[in-house]
Amino acid sequence: MDRFVSFRTGSRTSFGLLTEDGIVDLQSDQDRFGSMRQALQDGALPLLAEMGAARGADYAHEAVTLTIPVPDPEKIICVGVNFPDRNAEYKDGSNQPEHMSLFPRFPRSFTGADQPLIRPPESPQLDYEAEIVLVIGQRGRRIPEDQALAHVAGLSLCNEGTIRDWTRHGKFNVTQGKNWDRSGSIGPWIVPFTDPAQLADIRLTARVNGELRQDDRTSRMLFPFARIISYVSTFTTLMPGDMLVCGTPSGAGARMDPPRWLAPGDVVEVEADGIGILRNPVADEVS
Amino acid sequence: MDRFVSFRTGSRTSFGLLTEDGIVDLQSDQDRFGSMRQALQDGALPLLAEMGAARGADYAHEAVTLTIPVPDPEKIICVGVNFPDRNAEYKDGSNQPEHMSLFPRFPRSFTGADQPLIRPPESPQLDYEAEIVLVIGQRGRRIPEDQALAHVAGLSLCNEGTIRDWTRHGKFNVTQGKNWDRSGSIGPWIVPFTDPAQLADIRLTARVNGELRQDDRTSRMLFPFARIISYVSTFTTLMPGDMLVCGTPSGAGARMDPPRWLAPGDVVEVEADGIGILRNPVADEVS
Repeated sequence: MDRFVSFRTGSRTSFGLLTEDGIVDLQSDQDRFGSMRQALQDGALPLLAEMGAARGADYAHEAVTLTIPVPDPEKIICVGVNFPDRNAEYKDGSNQPEHMSLFPRFPRSFTGADQPLIRPPESPQLDYEAEIVLVIGQRGRRIPEDQALAHVAGLSLCNEGTIRDWTRHGKFNVTQGKNWDRSGSIGPWIVPFTDPAQLADIRLTARVNGELRQDDRTSRMLFPFARIISYVSTFTTLMPGDMLVCGTPSGAGARMDPPRWLAPGDVVEVEADGIGILRNPVADEVS
Repeated sequence: MDRFVSFRTGSRTSFGLLTEDGIVDLQSDQDRFGSMRQALQDGALPLLAEMGAARGADYAHEAVTLTIPVPDPEKIICVGVNFPDRNAEYKDGSNQPEHMSLFPRFPRSFTGADQPLIRPPESPQLDYEAEIVLVIGQRGRRIPEDQALAHVAGLSLCNEGTIRDWTRHGKFNVTQGKNWDRSGSIGPWIVPFTDPAQLADIRLTARVNGELRQDDRTSRMLFPFARIISYVSTFTTLMPGDMLVCGTPSGAGARMDPPRWLAPGDVVEVEADGIGILRNPVADEVS
């Protein structure tokens, strides 16, 4: 399984292939692929996997800091309320909605794997949400469902970390609670997507300090992956590097009685079959 | 009054100064300022105004197509329900909320001045919203209100065009209805912001085919400009080139009885004292 990463080392930002021996820098010897976004734009993941496999590692694992896999996407769109029992968790008496809820997150609201999720001084209500990320490889608008998965270049994981009490600050929209700097994470890598079986019925879990909190399967999603791509592309053009964050199972800390918020020292792991584990500690913001 | 524009001519994208004789290209003779975003990042508007004034126009007005003033911002955040009577227009019996509603829009949901606002085949409910845009010049987080306006480099106008029936498709969030490709506009230019009087009590209007539909003054905003900057920067770092779209007066077409939607052939003008007029025709999407 090839694993593509974006990373920082010193003042250098780059992208490459993660191997057992370290990181093969794929930006180093040519300008052709300046970034993961450019590589996606050029449909170059298969070529780059081949190039990378033929070379030795440029950096040891501990010499780099992973960033989110596409650090500069045009857009990141998240799907709300997309697993069984999630609508009921809101206890508002509403029926399952006909269309999916969507909200954008800015890249700076996410950090990479192993970096701390930041709890700000303004709220103790930092919460986790395990999600699967579709990384778009091929531009499209009004994509029919039966062609939708062909627009996906790769898969990643998201801890769609949320400052819960700020999601309902305004009259409309969860924008604020979903966009605190470094309150969530995406990563650790992009796994190339080549077979629908990679998504059809995989297990998605979240653990906090090893305790299983979320556990469901993608076959139970209310709005399946192809439907998400088709619906979102109705109104906006999907572009290479865009990331669709596809919804979380029941079991976030906010839904427990009493709620259980993340605190400094906690470690959250998001895991999905065939993609990997996204692990982040939790820390208070340092001013 | 200096007017900075971003534009396309042929396959070239650039930015410059709009003068009576045409456009002075500010990107042409150096790599130092590659884009409006870079110029904002470098705090270079005063220097560029001086350089531009000393030179002749590179392009005639009709040789360029204006794009949105910062074509590649890190983020665009819009404020909902921010003028008197706007909350009452929702007729939901709620009190004026304590905090502002916020929603992101992607750059591709906006076109530049004089370009058509696009009505998609999926809905007849294209609506206008006149708004003032703050263009951020100086990075900041948790900016105190009394220092907030110092982070604004310039002002622009927005027609925050909306596909009204798609704002309530999902259980939460107006994302879909606010993000149809080229459904709104920003422009025509950026006016440097140097004096709080440029914002304190200016008239903001929208006209459709010359008929006045929205008409209010910024002194009546529920959440003033400095408050918006301070509140948004509580959760996300504001960056040079970011645009804050500050809310629309009552009188959008959706609030009329019966509603009056925009149709092909209509011309919408958004105007504000000291900033200018943003004019866009309306057209059906051409497939």
